[in-house]
Amino acid sequence: MRLPAFKSVARYLPILDWGRHYGIGPLTNDMVAAVIVTIMLIPQSLAYALLAGLPAEMGLYASILPLVAYAIFGTSRALAVGPVAVVSLMTAAAVGNLALQGTAEYAAAAIALAFLSGLFLILLGVFRLGFLANFLSHPVIAGFITASGIIIATSQLKHILGIPASGHTLLTLLGSIMGNLGQINIWTAIIGIGATAFLFWVRKGLKPKLLKAGLPPRLAEVLAKAGPVAAVVVTTFVTWALGLGNRGVAIVGEVPQGLPPLTFPSFDADLWTSLIGSAVLISIIGFVESVSVAQTLAAKKRQRIVPDQELIGLGASNIAASVSGGYPVTGGFARSVVNFDAGAETPAAGAFTAIGIAVAAMALTPLLFFLPKATLAATIIVAVLSLVDFSILRTTWGYSKADFAAVAATILLTLGYGVEIGVSAGVAISVALYLYRTSRPHIAEVGVVPGTEHFRNIHRHAVETDPAILTIRVDENLYFANARFLEDYLYDRVVGDEAVKHVILMCSAVNEIDTSALESLEAVNHRLGDMGLKLHLSEVKGPVMDRLKKTHFLLDLTGDVYISQYQAFRDLSRVREKAAEAKDAPA
Amino acid sequence: MRLPAFKSVARYLPILDWGRHYGIGPLTNDMVAAVIVTIMLIPQSLAYALLAGLPAEMGLYASILPLVAYAIFGTSRALAVGPVAVVSLMTAAAVGNLALQGTAEYAAAAIALAFLSGLFLILLGVFRLGFLANFLSHPVIAGFITASGIIIATSQLKHILGIPASGHTLLTLLGSIMGNLGQINIWTAIIGIGATAFLFWVRKGLKPKLLKAGLPPRLAEVLAKAGPVAAVVVTTFVTWALGLGNRGVAIVGEVPQGLPPLTFPSFDADLWTSLIGSAVLISIIGFVESVSVAQTLAAKKRQRIVPDQELIGLGASNIAASVSGGYPVTGGFARSVVNFDAGAETPAAGAFTAIGIAVAAMALTPLLFFLPKATLAATIIVAVLSLVDFSILRTTWGYSKADFAAVAATILLTLGYGVEIGVSAGVAISVALYLYRTSRPHIAEVGVVPGTEHFRNIHRHAVETDPAILTIRVDENLYFANARFLEDYLYDRVVGDEAVKHVILMCSAVNEIDTSALESLEAVNHRLGDMGLKLHLSEVKGPVMDRLKKTHFLLDLTGDVYISQYQAFRDLSRVREKAAEAKDAPA
Repeated sequence: MRLPAFKSVARYLPILDWGRHYGIGPLTNDMVAAVIVTIMLIPQSLAYALLAGLPAEMGLYASILPLVAYAIFGTSRALAVGPVAVVSLMTAAAVGNLALQGTAEYAAAAIALAFLSGLFLILLGVFRLGFLANFLSHPVIAGFITASGIIIATSQLKHILGIPASGHTLLTLLGSIMGNLGQINIWTAIIGIGATAFLFWVRKGLKPKLLKAGLPPRLAEVLAKAGPVAAVVVTTFVTWALGLGNRGVAIVGEVPQGLPPLTFPSFDADLWTSLIGSAVLISIIGFVESVSVAQTLAAKKRQRIVPDQELIGLGASNIAASVSGGYPVTGGFARSVVNFDAGAETPAAGAFTAIGIAVAAMALTPLLFFLPKATLAATIIVAVLSLVDFSILRTTWGYSKADFAAVAATILLTLGYGVEIGVSAGVAISVALYLYRTSRPHIAEVGVVPGTEHFRNIHRHAVETDPAILTIRVDENLYFANARFLEDYLYDRVVGDEAVKHVILMCSAVNEIDTSALESLEAVNHRLGDMGLKLHLSEVKGPVMDRLKKTHFLLDLTGDVYISQYQAFRDLSRVREKAAEAKDAPA
Repeated sequence: MRLPAFKSVARYLPILDWGRHYGIGPLTNDMVAAVIVTIMLIPQSLAYALLAGLPAEMGLYASILPLVAYAIFGTSRALAVGPVAVVSLMTAAAVGNLALQGTAEYAAAAIALAFLSGLFLILLGVFRLGFLANFLSHPVIAGFITASGIIIATSQLKHILGIPASGHTLLTLLGSIMGNLGQINIWTAIIGIGATAFLFWVRKGLKPKLLKAGLPPRLAEVLAKAGPVAAVVVTTFVTWALGLGNRGVAIVGEVPQGLPPLTFPSFDADLWTSLIGSAVLISIIGFVESVSVAQTLAAKKRQRIVPDQELIGLGASNIAASVSGGYPVTGGFARSVVNFDAGAETPAAGAFTAIGIAVAAMALTPLLFFLPKATLAATIIVAVLSLVDFSILRTTWGYSKADFAAVAATILLTLGYGVEIGVSAGVAISVALYLYRTSRPHIAEVGVVPGTEHFRNIHRHAVETDPAILTIRVDENLYFANARFLEDYLYDRVVGDEAVKHVILMCSAVNEIDTSALESLEAVNHRLGDMGLKLHLSEVKGPVMDRLKKTHFLLDLTGDVYISQYQAFRDLSRVREKAAEAKDAPA
């Protein structure tokens, strides 16, 4: 039996749940997965630090303590946390406005960004505000990831070619690269283009070859994932052997050897103010990316993740990054899939990965001195180009023009004005288009499907109607944005149609009537009454009815409220028939 | 027969419609109404100019050409256009940030504001964007008007007491008044308080007295409306006779005699940038205030107004104000009601009023020299206090906590931070709360009402269900903000309920399924399929079904789509019964 206090602590510490059942089986599987992820993560963490404009060691630091923090606080069994491409790009964009790359201020701002982002994520988690991330629609995310991939790949061309270039948008980047094409360094270009071609080949062609050669599938998989490490080893050796560092090939240079330093994020109010907007965006983008891969992987094993606890897990990871010389982190897509496929069973795999990276930071950093930046750039390009996928444009074009508009705007604005404007505009546009659609709702005039109690649109189905009874089904909540629209529709419809005596508002699709809409309905009721028409309601939902009962509206209503549209139609038709009979009967 | 070209011109010129039937009957009625409105408008226009911080003559100028423009372009037969309290207050707030009261720059900015506002209104009208005004919900408007009334009344206390004071928020105004209470001018206070008391008495007590004395109701009405004119005449005479101008009573002073000058709004880009936000707010507030009174009055005579043409009418009025030395105008509530009650039949009444004001501007301005500002302040206070109405707080509290939150925030923020922040926040909060509610929709599990084909919530009605068939009715559109919510709800509901074999999503309240929600439904379909459950849809609306047919979703769906929930329930129950019979039958 667990004590209540333990339970409330355990809610925030999922490790207490899975940790109690941990044994030799999961341990072995987690360690195997950790080795594979470590091999993949070393070049990635160096490369993404380069993308973020930070020293290489900060990528390693961001891959140690944050993984331990997630292992304690996270709920996904397979998520691999660390530096990722999109968040690194967003970090560069946010920090690049405040300080010059390579300065201490630049690194300090990145650390502060991780701290702010962690704080924001934890607050969202504690107050259970994870649903806010839902306002980032799937098409907007897809468009944003694709556009970011293009920007990231373009930004790495300078390292591949050995030329200077800068910019956070596609045009500035391309312009800057074009302008400096004359300064190409031939040795850098050979390494860069060679590494890129090699990595593409490894990705597409190596695994089938290995399988054909008779290797077991799992080994073939591991070897294919080790491609970037091979590229790093070979190009580092060549650069050292041929002394290419003196021939203009940019190299990583001295990387401090040892464990991450203890850092304290700056508490400069000006810095915080400048970074808070970026921190919010990075947090939400990171959370959405992370939670969707975590959910996909969990579903495959019938496990569940807890989104609000994920916020706390990712928040803790970012706080951990900020106190150990790292920068913003989140769950990486490709890396988590590798972790899952390699057999990781619990978050402990992440902790073991952290040990692997720590060992690398202590022992391997001197070997990285001659590592060409072009090789790292090649690993980034190959990784992010797999994220680029324009099919969302085709899908949404066929299904929903509004979603297409949101995704097209997100892609264009991200490419043209950078990641922060792109994603903010994407959210704003999808919300605005949704509100626009609800402000001009679909309104159907309905009749009864013969032989049933079911009512459908008179323009789509062969239905029966009564000229004296007009039934209107509004396919939307009635609220301030469309209250006047319905009012106008009703007046336009009944003016001039002398036959109509009863107007039934079929409310099966009305989930809410707010104060503005209620006032509109009151006006409709009075004005129809003035014209000698009765207003009835049918199929009003329970929660809507509960609220209407608190008002005078039902008392003032000229007609009645019917539980079903069928009953309304039958009763009103019968009343009319009787009235007609009475009139026809001999006096 | 009208030619098409004439028709398309006529669309923008309602005067061509009513003007063709104009005769002696309407002419007489319009002229009577114009006389009464003119009497009411002279002190009002002077007072509102004072409220806006502008010279008195600008109020008169804003009451001449703008009225003619509205008579040509407007669709309401009774709307009386001119300076109004709330728009004057907003003008003071907008222009006060840019220039000092009393300077030429201040007046120039007010003229530019009218021009920008007119331009914006015309653009909205031409592009038929009038629906945007609907996002200002009724409660937000009510709260905003009430809070503005309080601020306006407070801002006039300085004129009543003859002390200096400044500020655009309740606290700064009150603080400023309190700090200067020692400087009270006793003569000013006598006039100010006396005039206020007199006007309140005229408003409440005079008309019944006159009726009792045997006057015809219409004359009593006119005399009661002439109260402000009487106050102006008496206090001006007293001030002149006793030489109170030399005893510290602030007087209007020299008002230029003659028709409005031709002015050109400044085209300074910096000025436009500073004013554009305020112009948008003033336009929308002015439009909403104006169109609601116009609609109310039109409905009383079974007439219709055309909201998009109203935008053009009000836009033309503001452009007219900006070229004739005026400032932003709109349709006034009280004034339009007086115009209507006085018998105005066509917009020509407005043109006649303009002539009345023009005569006043040419002939009466020298008489205004000794008019005390305290008298004008008294007319403002009495007029705006009738707008203050806190009952909206009680109404919304009982009906909708979300609407209550929006109205409370609007009132508090308007009082605390000024009109622009108050109304912007009101709109933002009502939109945000609407989105929040739709992101966590009401989801009901439903069963059939015995003896009918009607399905209702199992927790509210005595209904029949089948343990193997779970029917879920989502009371909301399925879109990005709630896609994951439904997914989570469904998993939580079916996990652990072994009896369930069929899940029916009853879509009678689903008016849209966007791309994000479609992806969620695809995921739900697959995962339920993995658990051995079939997913069905029922009562999918025509437009929703049209779009689903374009996707692979219906092909991948494990279950079926039923036109009615009853059919789905009956068919699935029958299939189950047959399967059970087959099992029970002897082999």
